[in-house]
Amino acid sequence: MDFSIRAANLDDCKDIARMIMELAEYEKVSDHVKVTQKDLEQDGFSKNPFFHGIIAEVPEQHKTKEGHTKIGYALYFYAYSSWSGRAIYMEDLYVMPEFRGKGVGKALMSKVAQLALAAGSHQLNFAVLDWNKPSMDFYLSQGCFDITATMGYHCMRCEGEALKHLAQL
Amino acid sequence: MDFSIRAANLDDCKDIARMIMELAEYEKVSDHVKVTQKDLEQDGFSKNPFFHGIIAEVPEQHKTKEGHTKIGYALYFYAYSSWSGRAIYMEDLYVMPEFRGKGVGKALMSKVAQLALAAGSHQLNFAVLDWNKPSMDFYLSQGCFDITATMGYHCMRCEGEALKHLAQL
Repeated sequence: MDFSIRAANLDDCKDIARMIMELAEYEKVSDHVKVTQKDLEQDGFSKNPFFHGIIAEVPEQHKTKEGHTKIGYALYFYAYSSWSGRAIYMEDLYVMPEFRGKGVGKALMSKVAQLALAAGSHQLNFAVLDWNKPSMDFYLSQGCFDITATMGYHCMRCEGEALKHLAQL
Repeated sequence: MDFSIRAANLDDCKDIARMIMELAEYEKVSDHVKVTQKDLEQDGFSKNPFFHGIIAEVPEQHKTKEGHTKIGYALYFYAYSSWSGRAIYMEDLYVMPEFRGKGVGKALMSKVAQLALAAGSHQLNFAVLDWNKPSMDFYLSQGCFDITATMGYHCMRCEGEALKHLAQL
């Protein structure tokens, strides 16, 4: 299938916001999504961006019945490991259902890996939901490993009132 | 106990490197540590730093028998959640064993929470090892939650040859 992979720009935020919601619906947590197109524009495309994006795009003749040509995306940001130094964290990797199984996800992730290596990073980190077997199988087939299963890492979060309370020590 | 919390600077990298190794020894993975004092200096204190640090320090009269006054640290970097926007990832939180139970860890984490809120972040994310019950209990007591246990998040990693292979698509 004919598709291209490129860095995201400000004009992609509308489609990224749409696909973030599609991914959240797939993950059954669409009520958790507070991020808007405007947030993405401000946070990803200002002077000190909080994240970077990559877009997968198909030519006009392959657009969806709703008219979309931007059919996949990845979001990532620079991270750091106190063991191995520079790293990249891939926050999202998504391909619209009708374009899956054609190498788009792998191409997006490969681009993230290229950017990681170009930045001197030795690690690409991300999270996957344990019930999402197709994604887990894909990642394992690419040589990734599950550090929750093998090393006992648990992902932890502090937010909302707990975060405010913690800050008030 | 008398101690202070402050932003880390270039001169702290020697002690941060020492404490990273102490933490890795506690976590039984000291052979995984490749980061050197020089890496920390370059990656944390250049124009576009990959991480930021916080130091806990005691007055001279409370120094350790080895002469250390820098007795704890936290490392963090700016992150992004496609659900809730700006976030902070706390890579490490460490207090030397003889100074534990005196509020140093909580003070370090509180500072990270303050910085998170000041940057417009709504989330503080981190990881903990499942066998490290004292740390897990501390985090849960602060209102943090275990998103591996409650939502099924698994931490994934791609590195070394697998990362290079992925980049070569």
